[in-house]
Amino acid sequence: MPQEVERKFLVQSDGWRGLAEGTVYRQGYLCAEPGRTVRVRVAGDRGYLTIKGPTQGIGRAEYEYLIPLAEAEEMLDTLCLGALIEKTRYCIPVDGLIWEVDEFSGENAGLVVAEVELEDENQAVTCPDWVGEEVSGDVRYYNASLVRCPFGEWEEGGG
Amino acid sequence: MPQEVERKFLVQSDGWRGLAEGTVYRQGYLCAEPGRTVRVRVAGDRGYLTIKGPTQGIGRAEYEYLIPLAEAEEMLDTLCLGALIEKTRYCIPVDGLIWEVDEFSGENAGLVVAEVELEDENQAVTCPDWVGEEVSGDVRYYNASLVRCPFGEWEEGGG
Repeated sequence: MPQEVERKFLVQSDGWRGLAEGTVYRQGYLCAEPGRTVRVRVAGDRGYLTIKGPTQGIGRAEYEYLIPLAEAEEMLDTLCLGALIEKTRYCIPVDGLIWEVDEFSGENAGLVVAEVELEDENQAVTCPDWVGEEVSGDVRYYNASLVRCPFGEWEEGGG
Repeated sequence: MPQEVERKFLVQSDGWRGLAEGTVYRQGYLCAEPGRTVRVRVAGDRGYLTIKGPTQGIGRAEYEYLIPLAEAEEMLDTLCLGALIEKTRYCIPVDGLIWEVDEFSGENAGLVVAEVELEDENQAVTCPDWVGEEVSGDVRYYNASLVRCPFGEWEEGGG
């Protein structure tokens, strides 16, 4: 089974800026339940359909398929639940790992998170100094949650 | 937008038997809501992921993608909602149209329906004599409904 194992952190400074070019992401969900999510994503000029299973530790099953861009855009515009997620992703190599910094816009403006994908749950990770608190287990930061409850509406957050 | 326009009927006799070879279908749903369904299907030795939008008349948006068989089978076994649908499909050409006869097994055993896909909603259809009552608008016969409420549990149906 294809498996995604990743850790997620808040970004605490601007030290990552200028280290990579960004790609604009636009994504939404056909299904956003704890046990399964079905995500439609447009990343630059590519469309993807991604199914994820329930989170187990910091891993979860993930199935991703490239689909025609026009169909991904149609599904985003007509079929997805709630608000769409808009963000710019910067892929930054540090010590042999790729850190994906997501800078959100729209209703989640103000939120910047960094994810690192791992080979397995026990892999050691050295965080760059612009990486702050870990939020791997915090469902509020799931993109599927941000559709229903965007960062801009959090009391202690972006408000 | 890719669009599916089809009419669905009950099958009232065995006149269709022997007219085509059957293919075994096994399918389940990652999402089965009125406004959207996400279906995983194994048809013979092929896997598919299909997204459908809300029904409008007898039409609905449909996006279908071929996916690796092993991944489709894993999703059926681990991620789908409720019971799986098992049926054998027979594609029978009649007067220039293809009639898809679905003979259900498992929890929906006893149910046999015939669907015909059309170019548009107003296309004339001449039904073969083994085709009975039309059930196009009846949500109970949607495959996504049969997952939650199988034919074998209907009071007036297969019970």
